[in-house]
Amino acid sequence: MKITAKNIVTVGGGTGSYTVLSGLKNLEDVSLSALVSMSDDGGSTGVLRDELGVLPPGDVRQCLVALSEHSDVVRNLMNYRFENGGLAGHSFGNIFLAALEKVTGSFAEGVEIASEILKVNGMVIPVTKDKAELSISLSDGKTFEGENNIQNANLQSASIKSISYKNEVLLNENARKAILKADYIILGPGNYFCSVIPNLIVDGFKEAIKKSKAKIIFPMNLTNKLEHTSDWKVSDYVKDIEKYLNKSVDFILVNNEKPSGEQIKLYELEEGKGVLVEDNFNDERVIRAKLLSQTIIKPEYDENMKATRGFIRHDSKKLAECIRKIINT
Amino acid sequence: MKITAKNIVTVGGGTGSYTVLSGLKNLEDVSLSALVSMSDDGGSTGVLRDELGVLPPGDVRQCLVALSEHSDVVRNLMNYRFENGGLAGHSFGNIFLAALEKVTGSFAEGVEIASEILKVNGMVIPVTKDKAELSISLSDGKTFEGENNIQNANLQSASIKSISYKNEVLLNENARKAILKADYIILGPGNYFCSVIPNLIVDGFKEAIKKSKAKIIFPMNLTNKLEHTSDWKVSDYVKDIEKYLNKSVDFILVNNEKPSGEQIKLYELEEGKGVLVEDNFNDERVIRAKLLSQTIIKPEYDENMKATRGFIRHDSKKLAECIRKIINT
Repeated sequence: MKITAKNIVTVGGGTGSYTVLSGLKNLEDVSLSALVSMSDDGGSTGVLRDELGVLPPGDVRQCLVALSEHSDVVRNLMNYRFENGGLAGHSFGNIFLAALEKVTGSFAEGVEIASEILKVNGMVIPVTKDKAELSISLSDGKTFEGENNIQNANLQSASIKSISYKNEVLLNENARKAILKADYIILGPGNYFCSVIPNLIVDGFKEAIKKSKAKIIFPMNLTNKLEHTSDWKVSDYVKDIEKYLNKSVDFILVNNEKPSGEQIKLYELEEGKGVLVEDNFNDERVIRAKLLSQTIIKPEYDENMKATRGFIRHDSKKLAECIRKIINT
Repeated sequence: MKITAKNIVTVGGGTGSYTVLSGLKNLEDVSLSALVSMSDDGGSTGVLRDELGVLPPGDVRQCLVALSEHSDVVRNLMNYRFENGGLAGHSFGNIFLAALEKVTGSFAEGVEIASEILKVNGMVIPVTKDKAELSISLSDGKTFEGENNIQNANLQSASIKSISYKNEVLLNENARKAILKADYIILGPGNYFCSVIPNLIVDGFKEAIKKSKAKIIFPMNLTNKLEHTSDWKVSDYVKDIEKYLNKSVDFILVNNEKPSGEQIKLYELEEGKGVLVEDNFNDERVIRAKLLSQTIIKPEYDENMKATRGFIRHDSKKLAECIRKIINT
C-alpha cells in the first residue's frame, strides 16, 4: 500500500521555524512547506531593506537552511556573518537572497532559485510578496511601528487595540495553495507578536484557513516574552490566537520538562523571573510532552537586534516526534 | 575508437580568460583548467582584500562564470553588482568567494565548493595560495607596488628592471599538476603586465612549464596598453614572454580582421592613437585569423578600477575555432 505524504505547513518566522523544520524534515512521508512572516526589519535584514529596498531575507534564510540537503559547509556559508568592513553584521545568506531578488526582480522567484541551489527538500514561501510594515496600537493611545521597534516596546501598558500593516499586504498565492492543500498547519513556536501573528493578519490568511481542512497544531512557546506576553498562561495564548484565526486550534503542545537550574538561572539573568509558561491548562486538546532542549545556550546580546536571544529552546527532535504521533494517529 | 580529451590549461586573469574559456567550453573532447593570477587588488576585489583579509576573488569569479553550466540567472547573480548602501560596488560573486574562504578557511577550498555549486565544467585554479603583491621596478629607479597602482603607472619611462612579488609566492600544487598534465597551454589574452605575466613569475611556474610537454599557444592581444606596451609589435610580445617563460611559444595567434571605423574611433577616444597591435611579424609559428568581436562595446569608465575597459575584444567563438584547428591537427 502506498502511503501518501502528509502535507505539513509551518507558520512563523526565523528561529522557531528553523527548530520545528529541522526536526520535521527527518520524518518519513511528509511534504513540508514553510510560510514565513515578512515583517522583520531589524539587524542585517533591516539594513538590506533600507539600503537596497528588498524584502526581508533573514527569516526565509533560516527556513531554507533548515530544509537544505546540501553539505554542512554550504549551510554554514548561508549563516556566515561578516565581521569587518562594509559587510560587517550581514549574514551571507541575507546578501544572497537580496542579490537574487535584484537579479530576478522578485523576492519570491529569488527564493525559488535559492531553494534549487541549496537543494531544499520542501518549499519556503514568503507569506506575502508585499512590503509589510507592522503596526501595533494599544488602547491607551500608544502606537508602535516596525517590527524592530515593536520587539522592544512594552505592549502590556494597556490592551492591544489593533495589529495591522501600514499598507495592504496580500497573501502570496503559493501560501494560499499550501494552506488549502495542508493536512496539518503548525503555528509557531516563535516570537508571538513579531513572528507568529504577523502571518495571521495578512489579507486572505483567515479566509484560506477557513477553507482549509487542515488540523491546526499550536506548539506553545516555552517562555513568555517580557512586556509582550508577561504572565500569560496556556489558556491566554489559545484564546488569543483563536481570535486572529477565527477558528479553533486542534492540538496544543505543552512542554512538561522542567529546565535545569542553570537554564533557569541564565534565563532569569536576562529576562527576569516568572517568564516560564504555566502549563496547568485543562483542555482535551492539550498534549503534554518533554519538548525541551538540554543544550545550554549561553545568553547572547545581539547589538543589531537590540534584544536578547532566547536560550530555553525546543528540542527539534522531541518536537518532531510529538508531531509525528499526532499525524500518524 | 575512444577519443581522449585534450587537456587545455588557460593562464590569465579575469576578462581575457573569460573570453577564451567561454569559447573553449563548447569544444568537444577538451578538459579545461583555468589558472588564475592572484595579484588583483583593485575595485571590489581590493576592498574585500583590505577589509576581510581574503585572497582576490574577482578574476576567479569570472572564470567560474565562464565554465559554469548552471542557469543564466545564477551566472547573472555571480556578476550582479550592488548599487547602494554598504554593499555598493561589490559584485555578489566576489562576496560569495570571500564568504567561502572565511567558512572553509582556505581560498582554494572555497573555489572548489563554488565550482560544485555553480556546476563548473572544468577546474578553476588560483595560481598560488599565497598573498601576492606585485611590484615592478624600472631601470630609472621608479618602483610601483600593487596591481591597481601598476595598472595606472607609466611603465615605459625606462626599461623594466624587475617584476616580482613582495613576498614568497609559490605555485599552487594543483596548478603544477595541471601544467604537467596539459596538452596545450594558452597564455592570455589579457592585460599583459597585470594579468598574464603575474602568473609566469610565481615561484615554480617556470620549472613546471619546463617539465611539461604541452604546446604553448599565445593569442596576441588585439591592442597595446598605453604606457605599458605602447608601440609593441607582435615580435616584441613574443620576445618578452619567452624571457619570462624561459621557453619558446609554439603558436602565435594574430587577428587579421580590421576593427570597424566606429570601433577604432571609440577606442582612440579613450586610449589615443596607435594602440592596435601590428601584425607584420614574419614567423612560421604565426597563425593569422579573424578573431575580432563585432559587438560594439561602448567605453565604460569604472570608478573602482580607475581604468578604461577595453572595447575591442576577441570573439570567443572565433578564438575557440582557431584553437580547435590547432589541437585537432
